[in-house]
Amino acid sequence: MRYSRLLIPTVKEVPAEAEIISHRLMIRAAYVRKLASGTYTYLPLGWRSLMKIIQIVRQEMDAAGAQEILMPTLQPMELWQRTGRDVDYGPTMCRFEDRHGRMNALAPTAEEVVTSLVAGEISSYKQLPINLYQISTKFRDEFRPRFGALRSREFIMKDAYSFDATPEALDESYRRMYEAYCRIFTRCGLNCVVVEAESGEMGGSGSQQFTVPCESGEDVIVQTDDRSYAANLERAPVDPPPKSEPAQAGKPLPPMEEVRTPDAGTIDAVCAFLGTRPEDMIKTLIYSAGDDVVVAVLRGDHEVNDEKLAQAVGGGHIVLAEEAAVQRISGAAVGFAGPMGKADKVARMVIDPWAAAMTSGVAGANKTDYHVKNVVPGRDFPLEGENVVVADIRKAVEGDAYQGRKLTFQHGIEVGQVFKLGTKYSEALGAKFLDESGKEKPCIMGCYGIGINRILAATIECDEGHDKDGCILPVSISPFEVEVVPLNNDKPEVVAEAGRIHDELQAAGADVLLDDRDARPGVKFKDADLIGIPLRVVVGERGLKAGNVEIKRRTDARIASVPKEQAVAETMRILQELKDALA
Amino acid sequence: MRYSRLLIPTVKEVPAEAEIISHRLMIRAAYVRKLASGTYTYLPLGWRSLMKIIQIVRQEMDAAGAQEILMPTLQPMELWQRTGRDVDYGPTMCRFEDRHGRMNALAPTAEEVVTSLVAGEISSYKQLPINLYQISTKFRDEFRPRFGALRSREFIMKDAYSFDATPEALDESYRRMYEAYCRIFTRCGLNCVVVEAESGEMGGSGSQQFTVPCESGEDVIVQTDDRSYAANLERAPVDPPPKSEPAQAGKPLPPMEEVRTPDAGTIDAVCAFLGTRPEDMIKTLIYSAGDDVVVAVLRGDHEVNDEKLAQAVGGGHIVLAEEAAVQRISGAAVGFAGPMGKADKVARMVIDPWAAAMTSGVAGANKTDYHVKNVVPGRDFPLEGENVVVADIRKAVEGDAYQGRKLTFQHGIEVGQVFKLGTKYSEALGAKFLDESGKEKPCIMGCYGIGINRILAATIECDEGHDKDGCILPVSISPFEVEVVPLNNDKPEVVAEAGRIHDELQAAGADVLLDDRDARPGVKFKDADLIGIPLRVVVGERGLKAGNVEIKRRTDARIASVPKEQAVAETMRILQELKDALA
Repeated sequence: MRYSRLLIPTVKEVPAEAEIISHRLMIRAAYVRKLASGTYTYLPLGWRSLMKIIQIVRQEMDAAGAQEILMPTLQPMELWQRTGRDVDYGPTMCRFEDRHGRMNALAPTAEEVVTSLVAGEISSYKQLPINLYQISTKFRDEFRPRFGALRSREFIMKDAYSFDATPEALDESYRRMYEAYCRIFTRCGLNCVVVEAESGEMGGSGSQQFTVPCESGEDVIVQTDDRSYAANLERAPVDPPPKSEPAQAGKPLPPMEEVRTPDAGTIDAVCAFLGTRPEDMIKTLIYSAGDDVVVAVLRGDHEVNDEKLAQAVGGGHIVLAEEAAVQRISGAAVGFAGPMGKADKVARMVIDPWAAAMTSGVAGANKTDYHVKNVVPGRDFPLEGENVVVADIRKAVEGDAYQGRKLTFQHGIEVGQVFKLGTKYSEALGAKFLDESGKEKPCIMGCYGIGINRILAATIECDEGHDKDGCILPVSISPFEVEVVPLNNDKPEVVAEAGRIHDELQAAGADVLLDDRDARPGVKFKDADLIGIPLRVVVGERGLKAGNVEIKRRTDARIASVPKEQAVAETMRILQELKDALA
Repeated sequence: MRYSRLLIPTVKEVPAEAEIISHRLMIRAAYVRKLASGTYTYLPLGWRSLMKIIQIVRQEMDAAGAQEILMPTLQPMELWQRTGRDVDYGPTMCRFEDRHGRMNALAPTAEEVVTSLVAGEISSYKQLPINLYQISTKFRDEFRPRFGALRSREFIMKDAYSFDATPEALDESYRRMYEAYCRIFTRCGLNCVVVEAESGEMGGSGSQQFTVPCESGEDVIVQTDDRSYAANLERAPVDPPPKSEPAQAGKPLPPMEEVRTPDAGTIDAVCAFLGTRPEDMIKTLIYSAGDDVVVAVLRGDHEVNDEKLAQAVGGGHIVLAEEAAVQRISGAAVGFAGPMGKADKVARMVIDPWAAAMTSGVAGANKTDYHVKNVVPGRDFPLEGENVVVADIRKAVEGDAYQGRKLTFQHGIEVGQVFKLGTKYSEALGAKFLDESGKEKPCIMGCYGIGINRILAATIECDEGHDKDGCILPVSISPFEVEVVPLNNDKPEVVAEAGRIHDELQAAGADVLLDDRDARPGVKFKDADLIGIPLRVVVGERGLKAGNVEIKRRTDARIASVPKEQAVAETMRILQELKDALA
């Protein structure tokens, strides 16, 4: 392919809104152009990369026994209502009302559609297992799209769905997908950390997330320092505090004491006013879980982990209660709620072990502009009872441990996730089968997603994917495998030799770009570095006189001079070496 | 690939709403399943076919020098407002309002997006020509989706856009696309008729449509009987009537005579009431063209061709006027308008030559429940004047001629269309370049569409694409090229031989399906015929005893018995023959 016949408008300047390196480089290297907030056109280079990623994903999915199909983008909202996920998705779901007044979701994912398909086609255990996948555009109406391809409003997702007859068979389907994912990311040149994840709105019993470590990632990987356990921040469990000696055993604790804290409705404000520290505070948060009210109690320096809290109250959808509800439950303005006397008035009170273990603390007084000192867990509010539970509901923080091992924290980009879904969707949508004994059972499902565009962005974003000069792409997903650069376009012998090498490489099966532009060597080198093709063959007048051309890897400053007759063979050898390294 | 590992739920019964054979067969042969009105899931067989079609389209577009990109589905409505096409598309455009209140179109096509892209990247004639294409999902909010993949609410379209510096260069870009289209449809096994077409809402100066003749097609191909000219019905020109002898020359025609025609507001009702024929009537129709009113006058038995009428009044968007406007202009209820005295009161009066040539006729009286007899064109309403024009504005009908040659009519399915767009989009969206003399000019555009799903449906719908037993697919787009059918699954030697042939065909590069189901031969043959793979290799116990297997083409009742050792070679030979026939 000739450079002059491709639209590769590289640029020096990028919009200020491009905050992270992959976003900046994908614009600078002419991989993408923004159309509107969160939507991007993939230019020839970017689209070539995406097509290569798609092909790798397709090959590995097929090899793992999954069957490719294509489901519609427009999905009837009725299907989502049957699983209740129309509510779960909330405003991030793109909703389109058609001319007949029917509501449609623009596919954010396809559990409902595929399950209703299987409900219509599968009736016997003999037809199981089955794994259906598609590679198609998905939509999310992000409140604040950013980071280019990493949080956009539309993107290409590979989504697969397995249907099995038994939990053991699901384990096997899940294992096959897990292994396919490992191969996919390896072939794409990504070093993923696999972390335990919450399944969240998806429902189900287990999930793992494939995350590429890099500083600007929005996900947080939490690992024990011996690397024996990894989870994302939504999931990461925290050991309870060490059992403290009953220091004040026998010694009576002082009684509660109400203090006026005018306008001090935040932890920081109260601390400033009373001179206490956040870890001396007892934080009380009021949530809505459907029609129920749930109270969460934590130590003042800790943050609620919504996923853990949702699990602790049964797995439904929870949100912070609205101001009016908070006032009704606490009897005070927002910021002055306390756990005292609330256990009987709400559906569930959940106390984090680190709050339960406090000797005493300062809590809201359930009275506007007042707090209470000397609140003793277990004395002034219950730690057990019918609707009271002590459970890990907070986010892990530096200093925490799990199973006695110190937790470490690292940012990363999620590129894939696998879920054991169980029967949530098959029950709601009637995907049932008759087992060997003739008994009707719901299919046991798994689902498996990969963000195609995210693979490209994460590749560039991570340390190995770029340097100060531009992108560094693995041979497997680079828009081209090798670039041939003639230095002197005014010298016919240079042009001819570069053309010959290009043609012979192409005939040998290499995916090769010839920079045939009438431009200075400096311009060509700058663009080559920016675009990030892994291998470069440079044909110059001086070298040719000695019978040589130069071969250079994008990752290596060294230049190898090789006889021009060996240029094609040597290039093919290095390409094979690069490919073998990703096998 | 093994049949047992694919979801191929063939069925006997199809929903009553599947009116045409391709729709019925695509459901029966398990190519598609309906999700909701106008949306279909492509099952493994259907999706394999679509992927093969996509690959052919991609290869030919690349070979023609077009560059593949991917543009977003969500398109800001502002872009459409700049060309006015948000209005032109009307309710068939899917519109989605995002959480920030911004309106988006779900891509029905991408002229606006690609032109704004080029506006940002192209500045010099040196960067032209350029041709950008994508293969992606498009949306139309059809009022009444039907015919399966032929009129659905979402579909895969290949859309290409060329940008040139001169009209001659556009001609060349257009020619390359035209030739690529011919190759694409030939490779897909389709016999297209290329017809002149109106460019309609697209704007521009010329268009051709690739149409597959078949009875159930919604398009009408109009050809002269010598096949020297072909157009679609929207475009097909009609010769004016032969100059009649001035039979009544000198003899005065009777004056106009008002007659009461109570409640007779249609041609048929008036004819029944007065005992006249439709061809004796003068039909007067009132249209809105933006803020203007346009009157169209035709002979009573003719129908307005909206495209021709729009061209005759300058190419804008026209619609039949609303009832209130008709009453205001005619002074009567709908059905009683006449051309008399209207020329001065409207922006334009357009008279079809066949109406202009009438000696006299019956017209509406511009008075509710009255008509006028003996209306003489040229005497009682003008045939010339500042805002009066005689122009071909009707649909061609049986008996018409063009350039003296009789017109024939044939139904067909449109699978592709090419347009010379001119500068409508580049001017509206600022896609300009500096020419050699440094002068700024708008790019001259063309656009080129292919309906991917329609290729599959049209293939099956046309006579060669099916018989009473099922689909008949060309080798190039069939889900598999060859199917191996072991007749006796309980005989190990049959299973082993079929497996060997399958494996060796696969190793030889054939796309092969092995029907490994434990089913009766009749079931396997029925499904094989229904699915329509072009070639079948049957392995049976009896034949094997004689050392033979059977090879059968889907299109041929004859069965060839060949020694099993030659089965693979003979199959590969026939496959090559089938492929060569589509080259």
